[in-house]
Amino acid sequence: MCQLFALSCNVPAAVTFSFTGLAARGGRTGEHADGFGVAFHDDAACRLFVDDQPASRSALAEFLRHHPIRARTVLAHIRKATQGPVRWANCHPFLREWNGRHWSFAHNGDLQGFKPRLAGGLRPVGQTDSERAFCWLLQQLRQRFRSRQAPAWQQVAPVMAELAAEVARHGRFNFLASDGQALYAHASTSLHLLQRRHPFPVAHLVDEELSLDLGVDNGPGDRMVLVATEPLTRNEDWAPMAAGELRVFVAGEQVWCSTPPDLTRCQEAATARPLVTARQSPLSFAAAGG
Amino acid sequence: MCQLFALSCNVPAAVTFSFTGLAARGGRTGEHADGFGVAFHDDAACRLFVDDQPASRSALAEFLRHHPIRARTVLAHIRKATQGPVRWANCHPFLREWNGRHWSFAHNGDLQGFKPRLAGGLRPVGQTDSERAFCWLLQQLRQRFRSRQAPAWQQVAPVMAELAAEVARHGRFNFLASDGQALYAHASTSLHLLQRRHPFPVAHLVDEELSLDLGVDNGPGDRMVLVATEPLTRNEDWAPMAAGELRVFVAGEQVWCSTPPDLTRCQEAATARPLVTARQSPLSFAAAGG
Repeated sequence: MCQLFALSCNVPAAVTFSFTGLAARGGRTGEHADGFGVAFHDDAACRLFVDDQPASRSALAEFLRHHPIRARTVLAHIRKATQGPVRWANCHPFLREWNGRHWSFAHNGDLQGFKPRLAGGLRPVGQTDSERAFCWLLQQLRQRFRSRQAPAWQQVAPVMAELAAEVARHGRFNFLASDGQALYAHASTSLHLLQRRHPFPVAHLVDEELSLDLGVDNGPGDRMVLVATEPLTRNEDWAPMAAGELRVFVAGEQVWCSTPPDLTRCQEAATARPLVTARQSPLSFAAAGG
Repeated sequence: MCQLFALSCNVPAAVTFSFTGLAARGGRTGEHADGFGVAFHDDAACRLFVDDQPASRSALAEFLRHHPIRARTVLAHIRKATQGPVRWANCHPFLREWNGRHWSFAHNGDLQGFKPRLAGGLRPVGQTDSERAFCWLLQQLRQRFRSRQAPAWQQVAPVMAELAAEVARHGRFNFLASDGQALYAHASTSLHLLQRRHPFPVAHLVDEELSLDLGVDNGPGDRMVLVATEPLTRNEDWAPMAAGELRVFVAGEQVWCSTPPDLTRCQEAATARPLVTARQSPLSFAAAGG
């Protein structure tokens, strides 16, 4: 199994602390040593860093741990190869452009017998089931929203939930996806959520003897959601997602949640805090650390 | 004007030496301080590094100068903004996937009034005329080769020359493009070529007090073509390309050249050395430095 991580924040934030914990699982505290990748979204554009070296030893991972790149949405992945050899081409996140926005996608799981027909404009570059699933998701979204310029997450979310459920029939399909506006997280077997807001604690990593006083870099108005396969800190309240759930986050807040038939917790969570749309979210440009 | 650089090689080669000279032009020996990018092709896949900081001072550029990434095809660009603000989104090279291969594209010049209609699957993420031209080129190629899986350079080259000439009617259109198999170089105003093969010299950079004995890292069978807006070394025989020319390089050798009506040199060059196809090129995996 690979390990996923994502951040959605209402201000551009660095992920050097979280990435330090995640990268340790790439060959040191975990067996996910077949490469890694991090995608930083700056509105429509995304910068992607991938390497086929273990995240715990890669020079590029070392660079990313020590040179904070601030972004409102970040996706990261450390790989344990199941399908496709250890190569750049098979490192997540994968990237494609749709309607003038970069979409990133990272997957944890294993899909069997999922070989859909893909058009010439969306074909996998590597050999993973994951990139194939991403290409199919985007192809379906393109077909559904053919007439629209760039659909908002409110339109995309229910379609994404429907498509995710269809792919999940083929196996474990924990995934993260983003277009830089919204972060989509789908749980199949394991995905955990953490909401951070004022007052910010001193966080302690699970995988390293490292702590960070989050109150130093974050102001009272800052808020962020972290998503990870397994909790990255040992003194914060990470909540597991339920199987089959799709949640959507915008500017550090949950804005949408699918409600599979056997699930009430998701509905409760959604009603406990009023839904916030991207338009309603107060955005500022102060620094934040995660 | 921006500055372009590319390498085509028959073995995976590092470009740390050339990039050191190019990066100096990004704010120190040149005025191209609005960001930079480097694309490394590994067969169908491409890793892209971009930054909106000056290449002469960027921490990422420093990383790339000191951590050689070996690839058979490399494209690089340092930017002096003419259209679009200084942001990641506007840093070349740009990347898109077509038929399961990453295509990279970098441009030097300025296009006026070039606003073609682009489909939803190929729209610029940034604000440059360059990315718009790239999207249009790929859109046209997709339409022309709709029925083929992935056309070979022999099919793509004449179409690319025709499309390049069409875009060049709108202004200066020096560009580099690659799908990891072939490197396409189109000159409008300024582009220089250098063929390196055994025996390899000690090369001296134009922009730095730095020399490299190319014979140390390169074997008798290694060969490479370098393309740059202005020569990067001061003791090698860089040849200017003619206006309107498109040349194609595979595995460190020129394999195709367009012949604009006013141009005979290109024809002579093409006949002086027999054309080599990708299939015919002897490929090995020894190290090489450029």
